[in-house]
Amino acid sequence: MKTRIEFTRLKIFPPAVAFSTAEIGACLEFSGVVRELENGEKISGLFYEAHEPMVRVQLEKICQELAGQHPCEEILFIHRLDFVPVGEVSLFIRIGSRHRQAALAVMGEFIDRLKADVPIWKRAGNAPA
Amino acid sequence: MKTRIEFTRLKIFPPAVAFSTAEIGACLEFSGVVRELENGEKISGLFYEAHEPMVRVQLEKICQELAGQHPCEEILFIHRLDFVPVGEVSLFIRIGSRHRQAALAVMGEFIDRLKADVPIWKRAGNAPA
Repeated sequence: MKTRIEFTRLKIFPPAVAFSTAEIGACLEFSGVVRELENGEKISGLFYEAHEPMVRVQLEKICQELAGQHPCEEILFIHRLDFVPVGEVSLFIRIGSRHRQAALAVMGEFIDRLKADVPIWKRAGNAPA
Repeated sequence: MKTRIEFTRLKIFPPAVAFSTAEIGACLEFSGVVRELENGEKISGLFYEAHEPMVRVQLEKICQELAGQHPCEEILFIHRLDFVPVGEVSLFIRIGSRHRQAALAVMGEFIDRLKADVPIWKRAGNAPA
């Protein structure tokens, strides 16, 4: 599985879809959006911090494990860091596979493992002045 | 669940994401792409035909059933008809939900039921002259 991992402190604009093979029949994209209520409290946004080198190592490992179980061709992961206002995307994932089942399976398991095992932290807060 | 169903004979350009509530935390998008090989044969594209009124009725029914099982807020369905060349998108689905689990569950079940129960037919063919 071809893996690309990016971090940005700007608004996420996913690159145009450009798969390396004409055999990809399924393109599945997930955008995680900051919601207005965090644990029942109204917030203006979330701050994200990551240990980038460690995140890369762990995500590569997770991707290779999942690729062994479900045949996917490509995965693109983009995480926004610092302040992300309510309504904007903090996390974008694109998976390309021949068949939809593999992309759906990898997407679900990948995000579960991301939330459980990968050093990205968030806290509620207001936009920096 | 808010449902929007569209057909087009042009290239699919999904509308910008605009959810009606600030409580949507997950936006899941699926693009079904025409692959180069259909049953092992190299093709130049697929022709799609649909019984549009019947598709609308059946998709609305499927959406309401799935919404009863998994809390999703919005679903957008776009299907391209007539000739779709290899590498282009024939089907686009966007689901918005508070949490990712519901969007992933609905996406998988919705496409399974679409393929099994809904009157959209395809056949291999060349681009019209």
